[in-house]
Formats: sequence, structure tokens, C-alpha cells
Amino acid sequence: METKQTDCNKLKAPIRCIVKLGGAAITCKNDFEKINEDNLVTVSSQLREAMMMSGSSTSAPVLDMDWSKRPGSKVVDADPKEQQQAVDYNNFIVIHGAGSFGHFQASKSGVHKGGLTKPLVKAGFVATRISVTSLNLEIVRALAREGIPSVAMSPFSCGWSTRDRNIASADVSTVVQALDSGFVPVLHGDVVLDESLGCTILSGDVIISHLAAHLKPQFVVFLTDVFGVYDRPPSEPNAVLLREIAVREDGSWSVVNPTFQGTDKQVEISVASHDTTGGMVTKISEAAMIAKLGIDVYIVKAATEHSQTALSGKLIDKIPEDWLGTVIRYVS
Amino acid sequence: METKQTDCNKLKAPIRCIVKLGGAAITCKNDFEKINEDNLVTVSSQLREAMMMSGSSTSAPVLDMDWSKRPGSKVVDADPKEQQQAVDYNNFIVIHGAGSFGHFQASKSGVHKGGLTKPLVKAGFVATRISVTSLNLEIVRALAREGIPSVAMSPFSCGWSTRDRNIASADVSTVVQALDSGFVPVLHGDVVLDESLGCTILSGDVIISHLAAHLKPQFVVFLTDVFGVYDRPPSEPNAVLLREIAVREDGSWSVVNPTFQGTDKQVEISVASHDTTGGMVTKISEAAMIAKLGIDVYIVKAATEHSQTALSGKLIDKIPEDWLGTVIRYVS
Repeated sequence: METKQTDCNKLKAPIRCIVKLGGAAITCKNDFEKINEDNLVTVSSQLREAMMMSGSSTSAPVLDMDWSKRPGSKVVDADPKEQQQAVDYNNFIVIHGAGSFGHFQASKSGVHKGGLTKPLVKAGFVATRISVTSLNLEIVRALAREGIPSVAMSPFSCGWSTRDRNIASADVSTVVQALDSGFVPVLHGDVVLDESLGCTILSGDVIISHLAAHLKPQFVVFLTDVFGVYDRPPSEPNAVLLREIAVREDGSWSVVNPTFQGTDKQVEISVASHDTTGGMVTKISEAAMIAKLGIDVYIVKAATEHSQTALSGKLIDKIPEDWLGTVIRYVS
Repeated sequence: METKQTDCNKLKAPIRCIVKLGGAAITCKNDFEKINEDNLVTVSSQLREAMMMSGSSTSAPVLDMDWSKRPGSKVVDADPKEQQQAVDYNNFIVIHGAGSFGHFQASKSGVHKGGLTKPLVKAGFVATRISVTSLNLEIVRALAREGIPSVAMSPFSCGWSTRDRNIASADVSTVVQALDSGFVPVLHGDVVLDESLGCTILSGDVIISHLAAHLKPQFVVFLTDVFGVYDRPPSEPNAVLLREIAVREDGSWSVVNPTFQGTDKQVEISVASHDTTGGMVTKISEAAMIAKLGIDVYIVKAATEHSQTALSGKLIDKIPEDWLGTVIRYVS
């Protein structure tokens, strides 16, 4: 895969974490274009805490950075003051999925299959972007209200494009500049131009893999709506949470915790059996590619004590017994 | 001025028009973050008509491209259908100002003066972007509802930056790709990173000059809230509308219609006397720089029959007697 790219060494400070806000965690999945406000507030607050450099006072008042009207309000609530304490943040990048935004527009038009000359596909491209950028704006605002200096970076606007659904051009220099200036870039799954198909969908997970490969964060966190990766659909009664997955040099992976006596193979088949696009095997495979770079990947339920632990980076040293989630980690 | 740029010859088809939606025309200037909905609907409708290729049926049903919820509504109004008539559009670029969006946030923080290390400036950067991108989203949606395949392109996200307030990097290739794929890019005045100051404001007018210089549209239209450029504030009783301004090779300009017998000099002084940042002399000077390239500039009141005429491109051939507005044009 040939891509235009910027040397990651250009970054003034290393990236601590790339975090994915899963669509299922921050939106109400069965409610058209509805944000899960409670989760989003908690996630934003946890992110703020995780981003703060050790030594920064957690008791400093939060500087609300959203000075725009709220729906139903006529005025701005924020009262920006001259005197503010500077807070230093670790470098974080946020990427979010679409959840109940964008899905209707994309499936109605088939924009993922390309064909921009068709009026419906072109309209769907516009409509899908409107939906996902609406969500992006709300997430940027939620983070800003928690004092996180978030800036929207829409992949299509950044000039990112694909060829046969693989990333063809995804210059990360704009993301690097934003990070170096002290901002937290907020990207999202988007519709983009595709050199061979005309257009397609660039998923948030593919964006994360790309950014992780080029910017080498210390760890990656996927915030989702279940406790992690299970051996079968988590709604099934005997579903077992896979706590640790080991990734080998060749990219293959296996579950190392819990240990299934001599039934490793069965577990993997069982996972595959309920996989659909974007399902668990896809997720593990994408995560394994990141882990292969020596970057820990944590898949964890959003807005819980477990997500807070994962975002803090403490899992790098030790995974507590009572921590619920899935660690995907390289073993040499 | 050294800038990264793309050869305009890469464009598949020439650009017909770059149009500026003035902040005063599309927002309620004294009402915080309030859009002038009536004007925006009319402007969008006029744009659609102007963009349609001659030969396209103006009676074809409009394909609503905004399939997202409206405030207060729980469902999408649009009913995207499989069978749609393709409409071919001339290449247009839309740029809008901020009006009652962004101004409060920018002035409260002094983000235009730079200094990103100050917490208030950094917060103002985030807050200003939230405000102007909120407006951008609403304008994209208004255009999409009129069937215009509009796509948001926020200058900061596009990686545009300045050095001492002048454009340092403003790669237009993403804009070109969007145009070539049949979309209408919608840009806006934005806060951007500045190599020497840290950050500053990149105005919509500067963006237009840059795009006009690199992409050579046939004409440029400024939609504003008055009939055009006057010899003094238009609220004054004897204000005279300057109907035609001639720009010479050296960039100097003079009013050629109406003719003031031997008092040309006085008119220019009178204009200067009420000028403030972004005032009339600045506006004429910016427009003169575009006209010098052989590109007609029309300054006209938004949502009037006169704006419709200007957007149609008919003024290139002949300026009707009853047309109200200001033409700024190169004379060799």
C-alpha cells in the first residue's frame, strides 16, 4: 500500500493514545441520529482525566471551550475568563464511529459501493457526510465542554481518499500539526472519494490502523457497548469474555486468557461463525495488526471504571484481576 | 508569497463562479448565532438555478440531499428514491463569512492576534471553530436541501495555514478533486494555525482571492446585505451606489459609473473616510486584485433579482440598465 505520508518523527511529543469512540457507545443505536448523551458526557470526562499530564492539578476548574448556543438556548452559557490555568495534555487522537448517524443515508444510497455518476449515490454521499459531520460536531462540542481542546478533522475534507477501498492518500501532516499545536484531533468514519469506485466508506477502524501505523501511539483504546470481545455473541448465555489475546510476529493470534484446555481452535471457529462485516473477527484482525506493531490494544466498555483504567494507560504495566475488557498484545 | 499549490489545469472543467455568502446576508447580525433562514433558502434556490447547465430541465424535481433530522423533528423528511434524473452543474465554489457566528468567540479570546500558549486563546480557537463549523454545517444542509451536492471543506481541516496572517499553505488539490467529482465545495472564514503567530483568522475574502488566483473562475460574486458598494455608508441619505469600478494593470482602480464630473478624487477619499477593517476600501482592493486577473467581480444584495442576474453570469456580456449592484472589472 503506497500512501502519501509524513514522517512521524516530526511530532514534537509522542502520542499517548488513539481512542475510538464506538458508534454503539456514543449513539442510541436504534434511535435515528440520537446521541447517547449520558455516555458521551462520561466518556468526555474520562478522556479529560486520562489526557492530563501527571502533575497537572485535577482540581483545576474546567475551562469550557464550547461558547456556542445550545439547542433551545438563546445565549452562550460559558463565561470565558482572562485568567485561566494552563493544563498540559498528553497527545491523544479521538476517532469516532457513526452509530445511528450516517447508516441510514449510506445504506439507502449504497454509497459504499461507489458509482458517483448515479444521482442517488451522489445524493447519498452528501447526505451521509451531513449526518456524520453533525455527529462529529456534537462530539467536538462535548469534548470542548470538558475543557479538551478538540478540533474537527473530517477525513474527506483532509483530502483522504481510497483506491479499491484501501487507503490511497491519507496525509497525516495536518493531524500532526494540530497535535503539535496542543489540540486533540477528532476524526470519524467518513465517505471519501475512491480512485477506482468513485466513492466509498472509510471506516473509523481503518483510520485508526493507518494512524497507529504512522504515528505509533503508546496504546489504542476501543470504547464499545460491551465489556470486550467474547467467544460468541455476548447476548448468548454462555458467552465468555476473552481477556487477553496474544498476537505473534506473523500476525496470527490466539486467546491466552482465559485458557481453554486444548480447545483453542474451537474458540476461533466459534468467533468466526457469528462474524459479519465489522464483526468480532474483523475487529480482532484489525486490532492484531496494530498490536503487531508493539502497540497494546484495549477493547473495553465505554463509560465504566474499566474504560477509565484502560484510558489511563495503567494496563501497560499490569492488568488488574478485576479489570473487565480485552487486551490484544504482541508477544515475541 | 510562496504557497504550495496545484496546477489549475488539473480541473476537468473550468470553474464558472466562486460565490461568497456574506455573513451579513445569511445571518442575523445582531442576533447571536442566528441564521437568516429566509435569505439562506432564497440564496440556495438562486444558486441551484445558476449552477444548472443550460439544457438541464429547471422543472425537474429537486432531489433533497439532506436526509438528516431537523431540529424538533424525530425523523428524516427526505424520501430518497432510486430513480432520479441526473442534473449537470457548472462548477461553483461557495465560501461564506461568519456574521453572528464566531465573532463573539474570536473577539472574546483575541484568537486573531495569536498566542496559542495562552489558555484563553487556545479555548477561543476551539470555540470559534465550533461556532463557524456549526454555521458551515447549516449552510451545507440548506444547499443540499435544494439539491446542490455540497460538501463541507473547512480550511483548518484542509491543512491551510498562514505565516504572519498571509496564506502560507493552502493546497487546493482537495477542492479540485471535489469539483472534479461533481461536488460543490463549501469553505468558510476560519481560525487557522499561523507559523509565526501560533494562530490567526483566515477571512473568507482572503480565501476567495486565493482560490480565484489559482482556479481562475469566470466570475466572482459577493452576496451582501446592501445593493453594492457606495461612496459613503449606505445608511447616509446621499449615498451613491458605485455601479462600475475599473481596475487597471497596476491594480489601481476608479469609479467609471456613475461619472462624477472631475471629482473622482473626492469619492475615493469619502470611501476611505468610513473604512474600518473589512470595510469598503478593503473590499474594493481585494476585489480589484481578483479583477486584475481578468475575472469580473459582482457585489450585489443577496436574495434579490439582482443577485440572481449576477449569479447567472449574464453580466459578463451586458450590464442591464436596471441592474443594481457593483461591477469591478479589468480594463486594459
